Amino acid sequence: MSDARLLALTQGDPSGIGPELALSAYEAARADATLPRFVLLADPELMRRRAQALGKDVRIAECDAGSAERVFAEALPVLPLRALAKGEPGNPDPADAGATIESIERAVALVIEGQASAVITNPIAKDVLYRAGFAHPGHTEFLGELARRHTSREFHAVMMLWADELAVVPVTIHVALAEAPRLLTRELIVETGRIVAADMRARFGVAAPRLAVSGLNPHAGENGTMGREEVDVIAPAIADLVAAGIDARGPYPADTLFHAAAREKYDAALCMTHDQALIPIKTLAFDRAVNVTLGLPFVRTSPDHGTAFDIAGKGVANPTSLIEALRLAARLADA
Amino acid sequence: MSDARLLALTQGDPSGIGPELALSAYEAARADATLPRFVLLADPELMRRRAQALGKDVRIAECDAGSAERVFAEALPVLPLRALAKGEPGNPDPADAGATIESIERAVALVIEGQASAVITNPIAKDVLYRAGFAHPGHTEFLGELARRHTSREFHAVMMLWADELAVVPVTIHVALAEAPRLLTRELIVETGRIVAADMRARFGVAAPRLAVSGLNPHAGENGTMGREEVDVIAPAIADLVAAGIDARGPYPADTLFHAAAREKYDAALCMTHDQALIPIKTLAFDRAVNVTLGLPFVRTSPDHGTAFDIAGKGVANPTSLIEALRLAARLADA
Repeated sequence: MSDARLLALTQGDPSGIGPELALSAYEAARADATLPRFVLLADPELMRRRAQALGKDVRIAECDAGSAERVFAEALPVLPLRALAKGEPGNPDPADAGATIESIERAVALVIEGQASAVITNPIAKDVLYRAGFAHPGHTEFLGELARRHTSREFHAVMMLWADELAVVPVTIHVALAEAPRLLTRELIVETGRIVAADMRARFGVAAPRLAVSGLNPHAGENGTMGREEVDVIAPAIADLVAAGIDARGPYPADTLFHAAAREKYDAALCMTHDQALIPIKTLAFDRAVNVTLGLPFVRTSPDHGTAFDIAGKGVANPTSLIEALRLAARLADA
Repeated sequence: MSDARLLALTQGDPSGIGPELALSAYEAARADATLPRFVLLADPELMRRRAQALGKDVRIAECDAGSAERVFAEALPVLPLRALAKGEPGNPDPADAGATIESIERAVALVIEGQASAVITNPIAKDVLYRAGFAHPGHTEFLGELARRHTSREFHAVMMLWADELAVVPVTIHVALAEAPRLLTRELIVETGRIVAADMRARFGVAAPRLAVSGLNPHAGENGTMGREEVDVIAPAIADLVAAGIDARGPYPADTLFHAAAREKYDAALCMTHDQALIPIKTLAFDRAVNVTLGLPFVRTSPDHGTAFDIAGKGVANPTSLIEALRLAARLADA
C-alpha cells in the first residue's frame, strides 16, 4: 500500500496501560535498532504526564508522520489528537472516548494515505466507549467499518492470534458458549478459511498455507455420536475449502491439535470456539501472543491483552506483547 | 487399603496397543529399579505371541499376585484370565470382550482383597464392548460399578488428567458441546469439587488443595454479558465449596488459566468442558499426561490415550503415558 516503513500506534484507553506500554516500547526500540519505528497517535500532554509520573526518561516530540522517523532517536514522536484525554490511570472516563476513537480513526487514515505502513492498536474498553455512544461490537469490527468508509468496499475482519509457535483463528468468538453451535455455519467457516488462507499467502508469505480445522465437540464428535456439527457443518465446509484449492484438513479433535508434533503439520488452526483457540496460544505464549486482524486492506496488529485498569499507571505492565505486535506488523507490512 | 506394593495392570483391548505397552513398560521397569513392579491380568498366550511377533526378549511367567514381585526380575508376571483372547492387532473382535472385562474385574478384586495396591488400566474400545453387551458408558463408570458391587456403597467417579505441571478435571466430559451448558449444574460442580479436594488431600498429600474453577463462556462471561452460567451456576457452586471449607476460586477465564505463572496459583483446575481441560494438558504434556480416577475406594490410573488400533502390533506405540500412569499409581497408593 505504501513505501512507508513507519508504524502507526494508537493510544488505547488513556486510563489503561496503553500509554505506559507505548513509553516502554519506545524505550525498547531506542535501545534496539532492530525494533521498528512508530508514531503514536495521542494527547502529548497525557504522555508527558504519564512519563513523568512513572519517572521515565522519555521526551515527547509533537510531530507529523513525515518527521516521526527523524525524531525517533531523540524523542517519542506523537502525532497530536484534536481531542484531549484526562486519562486518570485505573479510572476510565467516557469523556475520554473521543480521544480513544480519534486515535484509531487517524491511525487508519495514515495507513490508507500511505504515510504509515500498519496500524497497531493499544487496548480499549468497550463498555467505556459504549457509554459514550460507540456502536461497534469491538475494535476489530470498527476497523472493518473504517476500511469500508475509506474504500467503499465491504470487509470481513478475522481475528488471528499469532506467536512464533502457533497461529489460531476462532471462527466463533465473543459469544456465549451456548450460542456457538447455532452460530457456527458452513458459510462462516468457509469465509473465515478463505480469508486466513489469502492473508497467510499475501501477508505471511506462506505460499501454500496448511489449515487445520478443529471439531466443535469432544473428540471431534466421534463420527457423529457426540454431536453432529462435524458431520453436518464442519466437514462440508472443509470440502468447500479444498474445492477452492485451499489445503484445509480436519475436523480434528481440538485437544490433540496443539502439542509440538501436531503444530508442525499446519500453518494456522481454525478453531470453532473462543477457548479452543485462545487456551493453547495463551498456555504456550502468554506474554508473546499477538492479535492480528486478517481480511482488512491494511495490516493491523495489537497486543493480546486488555486495558488492565487494575495495574494502570503503576509501571508494572509487561510491554512484550505490544513489542511483538510492532515487530509482527513491520514484518507483515513488508511482505 | 493394604500393605501390598504390587500394582495390577489390565490387558486392555487385546487388539489395541495395550499388550505391547505392557511389554515395553516391563522392559523399562526391568532396567530401572525406581519404576514400580506390577502384575498383568491377561491371557499369557496372547502376551507370548505379541512378544514374539515384536521380537521382544521378554519371558512371560504365569503366576498369582503373591509371587509376582518375586518373578519380576526374570519375567513379566501374568495372572492368567479364564477367558482367552484372540487379540489380532488392529482388528478388534467382540468375541474378545469377555477377556477385556474379566481383566478389569479381577484387577479391581485384587486391590479390594489387598493383594495389589492400585489398578492401572490399558485402553479399551467402548464400541467393541457395546457389541458384546457391555452396558456402562465407559471405563470410569464401570470401575464405579465394580466398587459398588464390592462395597455396597455408591461412588461418583471423577476423571482427572494429571501431569507434573498441571492437573485438570472436566466437570462435563464426553457430551456434545451443545449439551454442556444444560448439563452443567451447581450440584455437579460442587460434588466434583468436593471429590477433587478430598482426593487431593488423601491421595496426593496436598493438605489444603487450591482449586481454580474456570468459566464456561469466553472471558468467563464478562459479568453476565456473554452467557449467564458464571453468575447463575458457577459462582454459587464456588460459594458452596468455600462454605464447605474448600479453597475454591473463580470463575476464571479459561484462556488465561494455564500459562506457567497462573498454574502456580492452584493445585487442580476444575474446567466446565472437555476441551477446556484437555487442550491445555495435552498441549503441555502430550505424551506424559495420566488419567486418574478420583472418588473411588481405590487408586486407578490409566494412560491418557486410546487403543490406537491403527498402530497396534507395529511396535511403535509410545509407552511413556503408561509408565507415568504406573509411577503415579504407586505414588498415590503409597500416600
